[in-house]
Amino acid sequence: MAYPEVFPRGEDASSPVFSGPVWLAQLLDLAQVEATDTSIYNVTFAPGCRNNWHRHSQGQVLLATRGVGYHQIRGQAIDIMSPGDVIVCPPDTDHWHGAGPDSEFSHIGISPRTANNRPTWLEPVTDAQYNGAIT
Amino acid sequence: MAYPEVFPRGEDASSPVFSGPVWLAQLLDLAQVEATDTSIYNVTFAPGCRNNWHRHSQGQVLLATRGVGYHQIRGQAIDIMSPGDVIVCPPDTDHWHGAGPDSEFSHIGISPRTANNRPTWLEPVTDAQYNGAIT
Repeated sequence: MAYPEVFPRGEDASSPVFSGPVWLAQLLDLAQVEATDTSIYNVTFAPGCRNNWHRHSQGQVLLATRGVGYHQIRGQAIDIMSPGDVIVCPPDTDHWHGAGPDSEFSHIGISPRTANNRPTWLEPVTDAQYNGAIT
Repeated sequence: MAYPEVFPRGEDASSPVFSGPVWLAQLLDLAQVEATDTSIYNVTFAPGCRNNWHRHSQGQVLLATRGVGYHQIRGQAIDIMSPGDVIVCPPDTDHWHGAGPDSEFSHIGISPRTANNRPTWLEPVTDAQYNGAIT
């Protein structure tokens, strides 16, 4: 089934910690983030695009809404994400996420305890890791 | 545009604080709720169904995914919610939400700071309030 884009695509968010084109829409304004101590955002990855390995000191929740995506916690197998799938990455746990090779992938991201939820960016995901050869 | 059901519909959650049929799917398990101090759930209201007036001591975020819904903060006009709309109800603020009269309505609900996020249930929403005559 083809799922529509429900949430705004937002702005080009390409940066050195993404391997290709990516778009980011913040769904809460700063006052709303402060009121709830939670950040909520929509991320859309171009096919094959993933972020670097990274971790969040207070964890992150991903809600897949569109396309096929990948998520991997270091040392574990890649999770294939389809619309409706929910992933929780625990605090201070290395992971990466992005689109599968053949479709865009959109997920809602939720960063709890935002005021203290510090990201730490690490090395790029290699093609061998992306292709599942190396965990 | 007709939007598909992306997240699980879950179980019948009909209760005295809803005016009609409603379904609830918890998207995180208890360990994940504890790890993130956040509850995330999918709610589907039958046409015309709404919950009672209530408030959350730490607030609530609603992400509309399907159908047309209503949300109202006491003293304000009704917000019409369509897929992609995001509402933040601040802490300790009376509100209600539910489906419009002609369609099911699904939203993701996010309750931040779950360990301390106490709901307080109040009186039913009258038909006059639902129909927008009385705020």
